[in-house]
Amino acid sequence: MSNTYRLIATCPDNTGIIAAVTGFLASQGGWVLAANQYSDPGSDCFFMRYEIRADSLDLSLPQLREAFAPLAEQFGMHWAIHDASVRKRVVLMASKLAHCLSDLLYRWRSGEMDFDIVGVISNHDDLRDYVEWHDIPYHYVPVPASDKAAAFARTTAVLAEAAPDLIVLARYMQILPPELCSTYPNRIINIHHSSLPAFVGAKPYHQAYERGVKLIGATCHYVTEDLDAGPIIEQDVARISHHNSVAEMVRLGKDVERNVLATGVRYHLEDRVLIHGNKTIVFA
Amino acid sequence: MSNTYRLIATCPDNTGIIAAVTGFLASQGGWVLAANQYSDPGSDCFFMRYEIRADSLDLSLPQLREAFAPLAEQFGMHWAIHDASVRKRVVLMASKLAHCLSDLLYRWRSGEMDFDIVGVISNHDDLRDYVEWHDIPYHYVPVPASDKAAAFARTTAVLAEAAPDLIVLARYMQILPPELCSTYPNRIINIHHSSLPAFVGAKPYHQAYERGVKLIGATCHYVTEDLDAGPIIEQDVARISHHNSVAEMVRLGKDVERNVLATGVRYHLEDRVLIHGNKTIVFA
Amino acid sequence: MSNTYRLIATCPDNTGIIAAVTGFLASQGGWVLAANQYSDPGSDCFFMRYEIRADSLDLSLPQLREAFAPLAEQFGMHWAIHDASVRKRVVLMASKLAHCLSDLLYRWRSGEMDFDIVGVISNHDDLRDYVEWHDIPYHYVPVPASDKAAAFARTTAVLAEAAPDLIVLARYMQILPPELCSTYPNRIINIHHSSLPAFVGAKPYHQAYERGVKLIGATCHYVTEDLDAGPIIEQDVARISHHNSVAEMVRLGKDVERNVLATGVRYHLEDRVLIHGNKTIVFA
Amino acid sequence: MSNTYRLIATCPDNTGIIAAVTGFLASQGGWVLAANQYSDPGSDCFFMRYEIRADSLDLSLPQLREAFAPLAEQFGMHWAIHDASVRKRVVLMASKLAHCLSDLLYRWRSGEMDFDIVGVISNHDDLRDYVEWHDIPYHYVPVPASDKAAAFARTTAVLAEAAPDLIVLARYMQILPPELCSTYPNRIINIHHSSLPAFVGAKPYHQAYERGVKLIGATCHYVTEDLDAGPIIEQDVARISHHNSVAEMVRLGKDVERNVLATGVRYHLEDRVLIHGNKTIVFA
Repeated sequence: MSNTYRLIATCPDNTGIIAAVTGFLASQGGWVLAANQYSDPGSDCFFMRYEIRADSLDLSLPQLREAFAPLAEQFGMHWAIHDASVRKRVVLMASKLAHCLSDLLYRWRSGEMDFDIVGVISNHDDLRDYVEWHDIPYHYVPVPASDKAAAFARTTAVLAEAAPDLIVLARYMQILPPELCSTYPNRIINIHHSSLPAFVGAKPYHQAYERGVKLIGATCHYVTEDLDAGPIIEQDVARISHHNSVAEMVRLGKDVERNVLATGVRYHLEDRVLIHGNKTIVFA
Repeated sequence: MSNTYRLIATCPDNTGIIAAVTGFLASQGGWVLAANQYSDPGSDCFFMRYEIRADSLDLSLPQLREAFAPLAEQFGMHWAIHDASVRKRVVLMASKLAHCLSDLLYRWRSGEMDFDIVGVISNHDDLRDYVEWHDIPYHYVPVPASDKAAAFARTTAVLAEAAPDLIVLARYMQILPPELCSTYPNRIINIHHSSLPAFVGAKPYHQAYERGVKLIGATCHYVTEDLDAGPIIEQDVARISHHNSVAEMVRLGKDVERNVLATGVRYHLEDRVLIHGNKTIVFA
Repeated sequence: MSNTYRLIATCPDNTGIIAAVTGFLASQGGWVLAANQYSDPGSDCFFMRYEIRADSLDLSLPQLREAFAPLAEQFGMHWAIHDASVRKRVVLMASKLAHCLSDLLYRWRSGEMDFDIVGVISNHDDLRDYVEWHDIPYHYVPVPASDKAAAFARTTAVLAEAAPDLIVLARYMQILPPELCSTYPNRIINIHHSSLPAFVGAKPYHQAYERGVKLIGATCHYVTEDLDAGPIIEQDVARISHHNSVAEMVRLGKDVERNVLATGVRYHLEDRVLIHGNKTIVFA
Repeated sequence: MSNTYRLIATCPDNTGIIAAVTGFLASQGGWVLAANQYSDPGSDCFFMRYEIRADSLDLSLPQLREAFAPLAEQFGMHWAIHDASVRKRVVLMASKLAHCLSDLLYRWRSGEMDFDIVGVISNHDDLRDYVEWHDIPYHYVPVPASDKAAAFARTTAVLAEAAPDLIVLARYMQILPPELCSTYPNRIINIHHSSLPAFVGAKPYHQAYERGVKLIGATCHYVTEDLDAGPIIEQDVARISHHNSVAEMVRLGKDVERNVLATGVRYHLEDRVLIHGNKTIVFA
């Protein structure tokens, strides 16, 4: 399988963008494997993602970027060209619950998803053995209520050292401080155990039980400083019944959470998510 | 197909309830076609629904009720025995949108659902021809912002005349006054076009669009004085994408709404919904 | 809302197709509202669909087609440019079951879907009144087992007279003769009441009941001479349980059937379905 | 949480079965936590499952069985009373694919599902390290095409030694010989990677790709001597599109497979599955 480059761009909508970009690619011999465009009617913003066979181009990646830059400037694009063969560096953060972490480790271990796990940070030590069996560094950083500042200072240091492209909160159960959120804009993904915006905050399954809903859900979203309010990447639900206790809702919800989180992370790793204000364009 | 009786009961949980009830039924020769029970662990309430072949009993329905009463009293039951062959009287209330009304009319016309439509009330005259083609009385009761009191007085009178067992708000788009809600407790069913409790109130698809959710939903619930907060009977969702406009969300949502509403109404007509505080037990 | 043109094309895959087509459109001032491409790796076939604002072009539709023809020839395209404002002529064929027919009539009546119903053909007279209330011609063409040839000769004549762009078998329950199928290639849509290829042929719900499946489904597909084997456009399922009788499976299945059929028909009407051998590319 | 007993029974349908059983339980002070019944109209067979609080009974489990036996005989029941605290012995069989095995190991490791894994049998050695990290015996039994008989003789011996209550084929990829199937009737669960009865046999995703379906699925079923034709316990599907390659269908299918298999296994472990000919009654 040949390697691919992924061209991602956002710009004001205009006549001729696709023609200009695909004309440029064609002039370089570029073989387009997948092309997605979206024009947002409310804001007149244009979004695009192209997958190009690397071996169809005469240019190296730096040369390609250089050659593309004038065209991007002409249309006022925010843009990037990613090499699909460069694996993103990911830090996983978890608490005691293992379902999301185990699932991402499985997908990494089996090669189903392409990324490097450069570390796991947890406020508990429970998952250490399992993580270390995978030869992945485990950072136990307790977050005592009495001294969260110190805990997050250490977390920040561990993250800085790890230099992640992406941080995944795999049911981390702690609210990150605003400074940390803003250090990694659109690079922290969380899984919330409800169909947001229903049941923001703590214990959403308890809230769902009290309200007597017939569906429970999970939401994968980027983390912003505003709790559970960042751009949504993916959601799904499971059907429940009056006879499901909170414990059973938790169990049924776990299966939804891990799949929704893995899907959202995969979209991000494959550069399929473009952000538009507080919303996402997902070229699935 | 033989007729059936439906025994519905709620009482404090206790050892021997099922034995007592099924023992009573067996003593009368009663052939149980379906039996559902649920014991709510939080409140120690017990809920049951039995379908009994009418022709297996020696007793008439009044006799059956009389014979059952002492046992019901012993366990402190709220209870009822319904004759499945007695069609419930239903008033449909709609506005201009026809999808839920048309769907219920289809299910009624085709015999898929067993009930009598004793009238349609609408604050617009648009649907008159279609409803009247079905030989169903159409009551056009405008609800001007300037004089809602008079409008609802007339609505109340029309309803009193119709003497409905059930009122279905098939996208009626008006908030019923509290007195009307309390006149028909657990007998008014509404369809709300979101997955409650997300997007309470007006224009939920616009709210969903703004929030950038990936699923839209619909909720069928009993109407209480508290807007969009009554006991939920049924919910479902549909998947959307960034490229779906509000208009497309409305279109996709309509298919979910009509199915969710029809399912909820069917459950009610078949005496499958028991109410427990602000939640429902649905013996589907 | 401005009118749009829809350019649909299939050709051997090659470098520069998108560039050439979008370059052509840009040279005419064409504002692309939606663009979809797909390259089939097995066959090296390329498929595309573009929506262009009509008022952004200086050319009339005939002029546009003429201007595009040389480029289409260069790439060996099968292609068409449709005017979205020209409503397709549709004949509905039904039997006694009304759910799919009623649903399509509702979507037509309410303006949710844009098409003209130029006639209904049925082998029973049951649905006449309902159809005629809509001012749609109703053709009662019985299909006696003893003389199907004559019946289909008359059906063929009625169809020829109606000159449909699309024929929809809305649970028609009769197998069309091969000549009729080949007269309208990729222009006859059927709804089959199973998840094809499971349960081909008659009484699929009975087959599903016997096999004890936990999901029932419906499949919308183009009709070919090979029974239930044509290209699939859309499918969906509903969950069932051991306690669902065949009659209940039929009832639950109806809701799936009408939605799947309507979705497939809408895709076709909006020129979203491209056919590739026995498969479809659906630019949803 | 108190321990429970699970009474499972099948018998010819009759008036008074529920009354007799619940009357018996009540006479022993038995607190019924959950009660499910189903009467199959086609065969006049009756199925029931009761969960009883162990500590509400004066009898030990052997005493309870002895006391219940006469009543069971009177109604001609096939029956059993299981102690929910006795963990079932399970052997997992896998090949190279790890998704189902990893998932069941996670659910076991995390305590989400209660059972003992008494061994893993595989025709490859790939998964040994991972399994042995869990302190579970790993039996590598290659199945060469040239000598399957010897391989299955050894498999049979390993199984006999392990004395499993349940054998789970977690994508084992080999067809078990009939003798092995009949040694463990209704005690071997398989996951098939299609919505049976569609795509029986090898490479169902390839078959699905060729047919151009829009949904792929997975089926959890009991293994009988008839390939992929045993009683179905659970099924689910995932939506695919024309642009999904076989490899992507395999990836998307894995998530469905592992959830469907885990659900089916959980139902079995909790004694929720009763078998009726080639169908299952699942008291979920």
